[in-house]
Amino acid sequence: MEKIKETISKIKSIDKEVMKKARERLDNLTKPLGSLGRLEEISERISGIKGQFTPVIRQKVIFTLVGDHGVVAEGISAYPSEVTSQMVYNFIRGGAGINVLAKHVGARVVVVDMGVATDLEPHSEIINKKIAHGTKNMVKGPAMSYKQAIQSIKAGIEVVEDELSKGVDIIGGGDMGIGNTTSSSAVIAALTSLEVEEVTGRGTGINDAMFEHKIKVIKQALEINQPDPKDPFDVLAKVGGFEIGGLVGVILAGAAHQLPVVLDGFIVGAAGLIAYSLVPQVKDYLFAAHCSVERGHKIILDRMGLEPLFDLKLRLGEGTGAALGIGIIEAATKILNEMATFKQASVSKKL
Amino acid sequence: MEKIKETISKIKSIDKEVMKKARERLDNLTKPLGSLGRLEEISERISGIKGQFTPVIRQKVIFTLVGDHGVVAEGISAYPSEVTSQMVYNFIRGGAGINVLAKHVGARVVVVDMGVATDLEPHSEIINKKIAHGTKNMVKGPAMSYKQAIQSIKAGIEVVEDELSKGVDIIGGGDMGIGNTTSSSAVIAALTSLEVEEVTGRGTGINDAMFEHKIKVIKQALEINQPDPKDPFDVLAKVGGFEIGGLVGVILAGAAHQLPVVLDGFIVGAAGLIAYSLVPQVKDYLFAAHCSVERGHKIILDRMGLEPLFDLKLRLGEGTGAALGIGIIEAATKILNEMATFKQASVSKKL
Repeated sequence: MEKIKETISKIKSIDKEVMKKARERLDNLTKPLGSLGRLEEISERISGIKGQFTPVIRQKVIFTLVGDHGVVAEGISAYPSEVTSQMVYNFIRGGAGINVLAKHVGARVVVVDMGVATDLEPHSEIINKKIAHGTKNMVKGPAMSYKQAIQSIKAGIEVVEDELSKGVDIIGGGDMGIGNTTSSSAVIAALTSLEVEEVTGRGTGINDAMFEHKIKVIKQALEINQPDPKDPFDVLAKVGGFEIGGLVGVILAGAAHQLPVVLDGFIVGAAGLIAYSLVPQVKDYLFAAHCSVERGHKIILDRMGLEPLFDLKLRLGEGTGAALGIGIIEAATKILNEMATFKQASVSKKL
Repeated sequence: MEKIKETISKIKSIDKEVMKKARERLDNLTKPLGSLGRLEEISERISGIKGQFTPVIRQKVIFTLVGDHGVVAEGISAYPSEVTSQMVYNFIRGGAGINVLAKHVGARVVVVDMGVATDLEPHSEIINKKIAHGTKNMVKGPAMSYKQAIQSIKAGIEVVEDELSKGVDIIGGGDMGIGNTTSSSAVIAALTSLEVEEVTGRGTGINDAMFEHKIKVIKQALEINQPDPKDPFDVLAKVGGFEIGGLVGVILAGAAHQLPVVLDGFIVGAAGLIAYSLVPQVKDYLFAAHCSVERGHKIILDRMGLEPLFDLKLRLGEGTGAALGIGIIEAATKILNEMATFKQASVSKKL
């Protein structure tokens, strides 16, 4: 818990003075005032986050955290649990959606085993932070112990900090774990006290009957575990997942190290909501890449006051949306850095 | 007119057979069915446009067409006319928004003088297609002759065709011209028979009084010229602009040469609507990058059945939105080309 407390204590207010200077520059660039809309707001906030007048985004990292979910035993997913580990191998061979999109925006992907159900073959590109071989079935008791919840967040913090020496200007969070929309919906329902129906979607694509069943399973898990909405660690432990905990750590560490953190979809959003419940100030460091198809995602973004950058009806996870979001944020930052001012370009200002 | 007719006749249906094959491949990639949402639809359509199963987007070109508008004499813009030519120099020195965003996505910018009011200094990077030194004031009569309207479209076609030998996989349209939201609103009102108020916005940022005045000016122009909604050439001639005409040509040529055409904002949208009025089939080749703040943009996108890729509250023009759109479309195409199939990656399929 020490590490988490220390990380939270490092999260400071973003630099409003630098933001003011960035805004002044934006207003002097050769374009009508405010005409680059949200790109301008983004670049302004990046300035504040980094405390730099003209911040540069070069080194981009997407952390794709992976874990299995005991609740899969209840038959809530369209895919078998084995897909989780199979996808890890796909990640390191470069064949997954996140590999393609991360490469497109020039980001590297850091794959972390937070708790895959099987033992993965050791590989230089898989960071081993395995807390356990999957969570327990939350319908029958807590998904993990309170200690494991703390441990998973700490592992996420470490993963980010271990990467810092290689150079990091922006980070994105991604997830993989069959069953993790079920856990995420449970986490969100627990933290927000909203009805399970309001925050539950069809995950990888289940039919009506499975969808009804999924809602029932989440309700059972909440009923049996009675997570305490005032204790985000308790919520994570009882109905969360190891990759969700790890992502909470990634988000906290990003903010603590003055890095913009780009949230991917629903699962990373659930982790974001846990981090936000621990320290609301973290939201100034967060960018919501997109609005997922998954029901409940918009609700949590609204809670955190985050407006997604785009809506391309994505629901893959892995960090795919975050990758595209990073591309847009980098573009926004370049506007601030690379455009000429009216004076430099000898262009007349407004009449 | 021959050239335009010939170009229109080359616009064929996109290849549904190839699209079917692309969809099959998309459905076999290591991700839940359809989970990359609109990225999948985009890549499928790019396949159909190019008639290639796994099309590659490498060479990207943004055509930024520039022209002045006689109607500026009526005081409808926040910026003086001289900004048009000043911005051309800014484009070729690389200091404008479009330069930054085009570079970000790896696109080259082709700047075309379609009718700047002053004589520009000759420069290897300014293509001279000047029809006249700005349009005439449309409040006092037609903005240009019918012949000039034809000539401007033809020039746009030539600009694209001259670029083909350098390699072009996708094109984007952009505009620059003080006063051109006024002309665009007039064009749209004329073609759609909608009220001027419904399709007129604040352009570069004018106050309430100027905004009221702008609407009055557009109404006057329509009243005096009586453009024929059934003749898009007549509409372009009477209330359009040289860069708008050029963009019609760019769009037609793109479709004729099986290139995806990415529309930028309101002005390019107006050109898109003219092209669509000439040959509705062109819409299969069009992608709307974003939904501009400019009122009326959404209306014309709806008319053409185009859904914007994102909404970042942009209203700069120049092709800035198209540049970001090209980045997303390229990413979509890479999904189709670079992701592993379930078989290749030995990942289990749906239960």
